[in-house]
Amino acid sequence: MEHHSFILKGNICYAENKDYLSVIDNGYLVCCQGISRGVYPCLPEKYQNLPVIDYHDMLIIPGMTDLHIHAPQYSFRGLGMDLELLEWLDTHTFPEESRYADLEYARKAYRIFTEDLQNSATTRAVVFGTIHIPATNLLMELLDSTGLKTYAGKVNMDQNSPDHLTEKDAESALESTAAWLSEMKDRYPNTQPIITPRFAPTCTGPLLEGLGRLQKEYRLPVQSHLSENLSEIDWVKELFPWSTCYGGVYDHYGLFGGDAKTVMAHCVYSSEEEVALMKKNKVYIAHCPQSNINLSSGIAPVRRYLEEGIPMGLGTDMAGGANMSMFRCIADAIGVSKLYWRLADQERKPLTMEEAFYLATKGGGSFFGKAGSFEEGYELDALVLDDSGIRSAKELDTKERLEQYLYLAGEGGRLAGKYVAGKNIFGSEM
Amino acid sequence: MEHHSFILKGNICYAENKDYLSVIDNGYLVCCQGISRGVYPCLPEKYQNLPVIDYHDMLIIPGMTDLHIHAPQYSFRGLGMDLELLEWLDTHTFPEESRYADLEYARKAYRIFTEDLQNSATTRAVVFGTIHIPATNLLMELLDSTGLKTYAGKVNMDQNSPDHLTEKDAESALESTAAWLSEMKDRYPNTQPIITPRFAPTCTGPLLEGLGRLQKEYRLPVQSHLSENLSEIDWVKELFPWSTCYGGVYDHYGLFGGDAKTVMAHCVYSSEEEVALMKKNKVYIAHCPQSNINLSSGIAPVRRYLEEGIPMGLGTDMAGGANMSMFRCIADAIGVSKLYWRLADQERKPLTMEEAFYLATKGGGSFFGKAGSFEEGYELDALVLDDSGIRSAKELDTKERLEQYLYLAGEGGRLAGKYVAGKNIFGSEM
Repeated sequence: MEHHSFILKGNICYAENKDYLSVIDNGYLVCCQGISRGVYPCLPEKYQNLPVIDYHDMLIIPGMTDLHIHAPQYSFRGLGMDLELLEWLDTHTFPEESRYADLEYARKAYRIFTEDLQNSATTRAVVFGTIHIPATNLLMELLDSTGLKTYAGKVNMDQNSPDHLTEKDAESALESTAAWLSEMKDRYPNTQPIITPRFAPTCTGPLLEGLGRLQKEYRLPVQSHLSENLSEIDWVKELFPWSTCYGGVYDHYGLFGGDAKTVMAHCVYSSEEEVALMKKNKVYIAHCPQSNINLSSGIAPVRRYLEEGIPMGLGTDMAGGANMSMFRCIADAIGVSKLYWRLADQERKPLTMEEAFYLATKGGGSFFGKAGSFEEGYELDALVLDDSGIRSAKELDTKERLEQYLYLAGEGGRLAGKYVAGKNIFGSEM
Repeated sequence: MEHHSFILKGNICYAENKDYLSVIDNGYLVCCQGISRGVYPCLPEKYQNLPVIDYHDMLIIPGMTDLHIHAPQYSFRGLGMDLELLEWLDTHTFPEESRYADLEYARKAYRIFTEDLQNSATTRAVVFGTIHIPATNLLMELLDSTGLKTYAGKVNMDQNSPDHLTEKDAESALESTAAWLSEMKDRYPNTQPIITPRFAPTCTGPLLEGLGRLQKEYRLPVQSHLSENLSEIDWVKELFPWSTCYGGVYDHYGLFGGDAKTVMAHCVYSSEEEVALMKKNKVYIAHCPQSNINLSSGIAPVRRYLEEGIPMGLGTDMAGGANMSMFRCIADAIGVSKLYWRLADQERKPLTMEEAFYLATKGGGSFFGKAGSFEEGYELDALVLDDSGIRSAKELDTKERLEQYLYLAGEGGRLAGKYVAGKNIFGSEM
């Protein structure tokens, strides 16, 4: 095992909570064996012997967690953005995902995806694969080699999907999923399997029930989709009439938080009952603002979730979202919260920059444990931001430079360094 | 005068109308003395002697027009995005704009602005300056030297603004504005002055009346703001109680289309009467989607305006918008139109990619005459897009590559060439 001990020097920003951004200009971020030992304006005596990596006037911020991203959809990002969810799945998504039965195609596509993810601002991610085990194993191998910390899921779906993208029946799906979990659990240092029912409409009761059993057996987390689109919600009501809310379906089968750590993407239209259940079970919400826009879904009421104290982070939802950048995701989260305030509910004030930054770092990072902050004891994930390409006549303080970077990462921002759990990951141009 | 005659070869896309994108793979775009002679799948005999610039597999599209951009606000783009329009003006915008009384500050800031604009996807722009004539003249000199085609306005405002950013009175404002128009009209080959009342609330009746007279005298176009924000509209009602709509104020003074070519930014909340007046007078609308979001203004009903046949283009509204990229502006226009459909009016279907592309090219370009298309007789503005950094396992056709570029210009897209009226403008990385 490698031991990574060093000091990063620069203008350091991080969020301990959603309301306040800590800024330490010309500060020292101490990393011992991959773990943060805190941020200091002056270097304490006891760390004087550690090597200092001096990033001079650059910004140093915690790594970001993408709580919801579909690896096989990267190949058609930014395409076919004229449909709502269910039609989009049938027209674009399912046909593309079925190609991952071909391992050579999967290799080509997943190489591009993992290389681009490695070079992005994302340090941790919760990833959907496809139903195909060989392709998903390859994805995990490639993800692990990036050094990023990830969960990756072989997708389960045994109904209401095209033939070429449907598991034969619940029994065989569960058998192969059990074998996959058994093979992949703890196989890699950076990448773990995650239980991944696609979403309730494509899963039979027996499949969900069996996945609940596997969760208890393997004690691995769960990811799925929830209450993204109005037609989807109606469909779930038809398919599972006994459940009083969409989330109740997952909950019935033990796939909705509690002992089963769970992240649900979207939650645009969660009912009172569903919100209460998420809160009780500590279900994570992956808020995916650009996907909310692109698939015309609507806007998730994130202010509500923040006030309820429901754990939450941000997701790109590639390829419901077209952009991989978590900076863009932050800016989009702020943006859609303003339109929600203006067009849907003026009682829910927009997200502040501090809140959105928190969600992208510590908020989502907490799905992985102590990640996404520089507080002592946290795994040291850090991004070094070179904003020299974002030119301004005005003199800006460090917080303003960070705010500007969030909006302008794609117009002059450059990632100059990337560390995950203390390991230096090459950071190329954004 | 320079004569620019050549042929561009590549995968050519352009829009003659809002419903259809013309795609000619491996086509030839013929430019004679800065004017398009059309696009051909095979090169006609009569053009065989012109030099061919071969962009191989890259995309070639018309240049884009930014119909609404504030040059002095570039220095605080992406900052202070937590306020609505009127508070944002007082807190961030007016203090920054007052700094342009200092010509050295203006020089520093406008150099950055014009260099970045030159390297952007924008080939033509309608630009706000400040009230300061020396700074605005410097801006025009710098804009002209970029080779881009622009209108730039010395701003008029003589009430309801901070002392340091208010003209003394209407009489002196009109005197200096007349002198400025006289000095700058036809001074530069690429940059013309434009009459620029900031917006009705900061202009007295006598000032607007005088600007109407100057418009008739100098026969120059007009730019201003219209119906962006609800509090702004209430304020205009208070200030000009005799006018039955906001646009009626400008119209009363001869600053609202008809013989005075006019572009109005925003039009988020235009009344029936205002819409009818814009239609009758052929007033251009500059739709600024990112500004609609950032300033929590709401979303302009662009489908309505398209159906009415009101002339329209897109604007970044820097720094109401944070991003200078017109590609981003296209993607944002599509995005907000989806949220408008979902949250405001399901009778107004979202913009298609073809429509948004048309607005950014020929739609806004028509404010400059024959610009923004490759049809024969159009001034030849072209962008060459290198999408090799946008990697995908899937094979894409040319239209799909363009669509993907619109969404991913900031994540791997690179401008490889830029021509304005047949002149080669250096295109660096986006």
